[in-house]
Amino acid sequence: MDFSLTEEQLAYQDTARQFSDKALAPFAADWDARSHFPLNTLREAGQLGFMGLYTPEAVGGLGLSRLDAALVFEQLSRGCTSTTAFITIHNMATWMVASFATDEIRTEWCPALTSGEKLASYCLTEPGAGSDAAALKTTARRDGDDYLLNGTKAFISGAGSTDVLVLMARTGGAGAGGVSCFLVPADAPGISYGRNEDKMGWKSQPTRQVTLENVRVPVSHLLGQEGDGFRIAMRGLDGGRINIASCSLGAASAALAQAGEYVQTRQQFGQPLSDFQTVQFRLADMATELVAARQMVYLAAWKLDQGDAEKTLYCAMAKRLATDLCFNVCNDALQLHGGYGYIREYPLERYVRDARVHQILEGTNEIMRVIIARRLLAGVAV
Amino acid sequence: MDFSLTEEQLAYQDTARQFSDKALAPFAADWDARSHFPLNTLREAGQLGFMGLYTPEAVGGLGLSRLDAALVFEQLSRGCTSTTAFITIHNMATWMVASFATDEIRTEWCPALTSGEKLASYCLTEPGAGSDAAALKTTARRDGDDYLLNGTKAFISGAGSTDVLVLMARTGGAGAGGVSCFLVPADAPGISYGRNEDKMGWKSQPTRQVTLENVRVPVSHLLGQEGDGFRIAMRGLDGGRINIASCSLGAASAALAQAGEYVQTRQQFGQPLSDFQTVQFRLADMATELVAARQMVYLAAWKLDQGDAEKTLYCAMAKRLATDLCFNVCNDALQLHGGYGYIREYPLERYVRDARVHQILEGTNEIMRVIIARRLLAGVAV
Amino acid sequence: MDFSLTEEQLAYQDTARQFSDKALAPFAADWDARSHFPLNTLREAGQLGFMGLYTPEAVGGLGLSRLDAALVFEQLSRGCTSTTAFITIHNMATWMVASFATDEIRTEWCPALTSGEKLASYCLTEPGAGSDAAALKTTARRDGDDYLLNGTKAFISGAGSTDVLVLMARTGGAGAGGVSCFLVPADAPGISYGRNEDKMGWKSQPTRQVTLENVRVPVSHLLGQEGDGFRIAMRGLDGGRINIASCSLGAASAALAQAGEYVQTRQQFGQPLSDFQTVQFRLADMATELVAARQMVYLAAWKLDQGDAEKTLYCAMAKRLATDLCFNVCNDALQLHGGYGYIREYPLERYVRDARVHQILEGTNEIMRVIIARRLLAGVAV
Amino acid sequence: MDFSLTEEQLAYQDTARQFSDKALAPFAADWDARSHFPLNTLREAGQLGFMGLYTPEAVGGLGLSRLDAALVFEQLSRGCTSTTAFITIHNMATWMVASFATDEIRTEWCPALTSGEKLASYCLTEPGAGSDAAALKTTARRDGDDYLLNGTKAFISGAGSTDVLVLMARTGGAGAGGVSCFLVPADAPGISYGRNEDKMGWKSQPTRQVTLENVRVPVSHLLGQEGDGFRIAMRGLDGGRINIASCSLGAASAALAQAGEYVQTRQQFGQPLSDFQTVQFRLADMATELVAARQMVYLAAWKLDQGDAEKTLYCAMAKRLATDLCFNVCNDALQLHGGYGYIREYPLERYVRDARVHQILEGTNEIMRVIIARRLLAGVAV
Repeated sequence: MDFSLTEEQLAYQDTARQFSDKALAPFAADWDARSHFPLNTLREAGQLGFMGLYTPEAVGGLGLSRLDAALVFEQLSRGCTSTTAFITIHNMATWMVASFATDEIRTEWCPALTSGEKLASYCLTEPGAGSDAAALKTTARRDGDDYLLNGTKAFISGAGSTDVLVLMARTGGAGAGGVSCFLVPADAPGISYGRNEDKMGWKSQPTRQVTLENVRVPVSHLLGQEGDGFRIAMRGLDGGRINIASCSLGAASAALAQAGEYVQTRQQFGQPLSDFQTVQFRLADMATELVAARQMVYLAAWKLDQGDAEKTLYCAMAKRLATDLCFNVCNDALQLHGGYGYIREYPLERYVRDARVHQILEGTNEIMRVIIARRLLAGVAV
Repeated sequence: MDFSLTEEQLAYQDTARQFSDKALAPFAADWDARSHFPLNTLREAGQLGFMGLYTPEAVGGLGLSRLDAALVFEQLSRGCTSTTAFITIHNMATWMVASFATDEIRTEWCPALTSGEKLASYCLTEPGAGSDAAALKTTARRDGDDYLLNGTKAFISGAGSTDVLVLMARTGGAGAGGVSCFLVPADAPGISYGRNEDKMGWKSQPTRQVTLENVRVPVSHLLGQEGDGFRIAMRGLDGGRINIASCSLGAASAALAQAGEYVQTRQQFGQPLSDFQTVQFRLADMATELVAARQMVYLAAWKLDQGDAEKTLYCAMAKRLATDLCFNVCNDALQLHGGYGYIREYPLERYVRDARVHQILEGTNEIMRVIIARRLLAGVAV
Repeated sequence: MDFSLTEEQLAYQDTARQFSDKALAPFAADWDARSHFPLNTLREAGQLGFMGLYTPEAVGGLGLSRLDAALVFEQLSRGCTSTTAFITIHNMATWMVASFATDEIRTEWCPALTSGEKLASYCLTEPGAGSDAAALKTTARRDGDDYLLNGTKAFISGAGSTDVLVLMARTGGAGAGGVSCFLVPADAPGISYGRNEDKMGWKSQPTRQVTLENVRVPVSHLLGQEGDGFRIAMRGLDGGRINIASCSLGAASAALAQAGEYVQTRQQFGQPLSDFQTVQFRLADMATELVAARQMVYLAAWKLDQGDAEKTLYCAMAKRLATDLCFNVCNDALQLHGGYGYIREYPLERYVRDARVHQILEGTNEIMRVIIARRLLAGVAV
Repeated sequence: MDFSLTEEQLAYQDTARQFSDKALAPFAADWDARSHFPLNTLREAGQLGFMGLYTPEAVGGLGLSRLDAALVFEQLSRGCTSTTAFITIHNMATWMVASFATDEIRTEWCPALTSGEKLASYCLTEPGAGSDAAALKTTARRDGDDYLLNGTKAFISGAGSTDVLVLMARTGGAGAGGVSCFLVPADAPGISYGRNEDKMGWKSQPTRQVTLENVRVPVSHLLGQEGDGFRIAMRGLDGGRINIASCSLGAASAALAQAGEYVQTRQQFGQPLSDFQTVQFRLADMATELVAARQMVYLAAWKLDQGDAEKTLYCAMAKRLATDLCFNVCNDALQLHGGYGYIREYPLERYVRDARVHQILEGTNEIMRVIIARRLLAGVAV
């Protein structure tokens, strides 16, 4: 076992930290307040390779490992959790295109996606199919050399501002086996976008419903084979869970740093808050939980990189634990700030609002427990 | 022991519930979105007596007990926690005027305050004096038949839209004993108001800094005697804590009801969410915690009504427990809604944002623990 | 609402406290160490009326309310939780005899039970029927004017040292409706007792399996009618849950008192532990949780006394919350004692061991959640 | 980063698992019941190298890393947590002798200690110096070529059955700087042992007070220099904390395995417990917490092996988190067993009793927080 980072990893981490400090952190509050999607910043991120971190170099990505990517996302999300979360979704979708599209489609789309010139959305969830994603109802009917897509996707990150949708639709019978995965140009005729959902957080990225009415895509836009869609979607999500968990690490890390500074500055009863033992113990627990969460994420990312047989189990455990603990860290940091934690002048309430959704999406933490329990009852010993 | 409500209490509860359902609930989301302070609604509340619930009838109040008031606040806050929270602060400040002002001042102000025609703010906190309220620096210097007030108050609910400030300022030496309490007309020359703080929640009520520069008030505006201010402020807060805790009860109660309905409607995996045992158990725990929180609040209100020697201890315990448990109930209800819990189309994320601040204000939950521990170490057995 | 105790309740409480201090507390550690069942002490308790607290006066009981009984049990369990827990089970079984037996049987047995001259066990659980009590397999076959009982009961408190068993057996088909309740003399031919289970705690009361082989009891020993047994068992358990929860209150109350004393005496780093803010906050939380637990128990007991339609719901909530919170209080008190909390010289580890089982028996806390959720989903609003 | 174990580590792990399964697990319940200290088994452990795992090979140890040792302890404690905990203390004390004793003393004692032929106790705590260990009062007064030791040590594991004491005593002024460390033969004239403390758990190892009255040891028995004692004691404890945390991992791991098996076997309501979603989710959380705890322990062990500047911080975080989480896992496993979890026929209640003390000793988890907070406030970023 070796817990040290390589020189290269330290360098990526450092680059990400610098970008985060300069290009994200100073603007995060404003993007949040204005619900502004910072397209230019995403393009800058693309120039550093952050839009295709684990996409192969052959199609413009950096070809990094998931663990490398987690290190980068963690740093980025310290600056702006919401924006970084979109970046991670784009990375996931881009990797899916790179991994499962035909050569033609891969070559057509990946370079623009990895460079951040174009953006991707991941379209799985539907109004009636959330946790039960395999029940999705959007259909893709073969029509000559095309598919005709019909249905509605919900809670789509980036929708309306992205260029391509990686979209799951039903080509066959009920259940997971009847689902296929398509690359759908976002401006294809027949696609319409709902209003930007007014969310609690994640405000620097738009979230919209996507409605497809007889949207026509050529057969070549199928990722993998017919019926592979759910498996592809889930493979994407293993990494997606690491990504989101990494964003929680960044939020918690920023919250802890901010709190550590505040309690040493803020005076009450004639002494800094940090002189109070209860404040000290709370900081201690926050730090411990952050480190524990981080180790779980790194372990799971490494398992994913290794192609470990239980990678899905470990990704689920990491996502569950890290998003729960990190939300608590953010929430505790808010409390340590008293009234100042509750106003937007300080970043704490934003960290809390942004981190909250990580317990819900990429599979709710309840679904994570379903996944974990299934493996345990199948006899896997942890 | 008798846990039943009287006919009269049931009637007040019922009136409050109706008002809440009709005049608050349908508008709460909009007020939140627009940061709108619903002055007309507050006046309507005044017509029902809700702006002077425990102020004596002689000056226009309903003369109810604190327990009665808690029952009313609980119902009101089901409809709009943020607006109700302001109503409770107004009630507290109004009671302070009724209890400690000279006859002249009481007669001048109370009828308009209890009717909701005029509104009151409570001004204790300062930028540098939060938990350590007794360290406040605002001064009141005697100048002939007047006092001259100078200083800055922070996080003042309603400030800028209210008519009168019940304000703590230092007339004597350092510490609690040097503090006096004043009624200050909100439009007195020398008072200026900061911008409306952009808060995580409680958006239907403005929160502003109040700056006093040589604000002149006649001696008659002193509440109690010189040096009584901190004691008066704390007496107000015993009730204030019950009030805020009651608002948490209302938020949690609404969240639980909403969640109970949702899980029986929302289908996943071919069955309503309520068929899942983990969903059932979560509802069970939410309900249990709500009932426990409520009992603590009622007990503390009753102790306050009885003038129990340990009323402050019980108010602190109730405030701590109820605001913590009810935040959890709201947050659990959000989680049960999945992605729908995170968007403003549903009230859950608002309940969470509104309830969050109750763990901070009217004395943080950390200060509650200081109060509780102090009594325990003084030998009080609970 | 009125949270005060009557003069009479205060008197009962006081008597119980004195008995607890004199007759239980000084011996509890020894009984625990020796697994000694203090029969003489139970008889003394009987002389004070504690063995038939809520059994009607007509048959020798005190005819108190469940709330009165809870007050008494709480005090007794401060002295010895394990012994008091047996007393509560005896009270429950005795009440069942008084409420559902024929006049003849009631008259024959109740006076000796309420006086503590004879002792009763409650026999519901079986090796294969724990949480799923209605699946019990012990049979009672009608044979002339008798029933012949066959089967095995598990985890029976007092078994082997008690005089009468209140026992559920199947007279009809599968499920709850086929169960009947019998009074079975403990020395009836065909009954054999297993070895005293070596338990984590509750050592001052024996726990044994009871095996019935063709045990013959006259028809008159039926409580209620054939098929009423499960309903009777559950009616007993409503009160039983209040009782056990009251024993948790007593344990937690004793643990808190002991901890409060210890931290003011024990010096570390040149000052009493009570000078450390984290110790103070922990005490504060323990006290708050104890009061919350107690209020829930009193509320539920009162609902039971009122014959409230939702008494079962409230008893389940009280049992769940109080046994969980009070275990935590005991466990926290242990921690505050450091190494001294872990050794038998101090009572803390005993409190923890005794209180632990309250989360399991009289219906596990998981079954409590099943009961609570069922009522919530039936539309009951709390 | 690399989370894989080397071939060698897997081999050590495997050997330890086999020894645990064969030589510990089958006897643990009996040793617990009889408070039996299994000296022969400790000697067998010594033959496998387990009594000097991280002691240098030059003096008979295996010369393994702390991480290697943690892997071994984790496996051993699955079989018997209490016995393994003693083994870890012996390892710590033996390492201290090997690291800080003179060559003569090292050569004299270490081979017998590493082989398990002789056993060592660690003597820091005193009746009045628990968390505040630096306040210890035992004195060592120079008398010619000897030291004369006087004082009392409390809670000494193995005392009365071990051969050598690694003992901290005061040679200089007050505070940490006045403490020195000695090797004291356990049978030196003037040493007397108290009775075996009756503990909640850890029953397979004796715990006694050690009283020293004019105990004479030659100057050569000093470890390090005069005044080095506290530093040496603390250096031992960094590893000691990893060790104890590893024992918690083993207990939790055994509890989880046992629970996983039980819930798939035990039927209630016509199906195995494992069919209930709440049971599944609980297992999932137990597994997740175990993995998180383990990662923290491995990380800290690795930092200790690396001589990382913040090794003490990470050891404290690991000890705090792992002992807390693993206690919860054991306690949850008990609950999943219902009544069977509470009786000694099953190992659950023993796991709970044994794991409980890990939250207290080798520095309470409160002291861990003090250590953690101190580093955070010194500016260390985690």
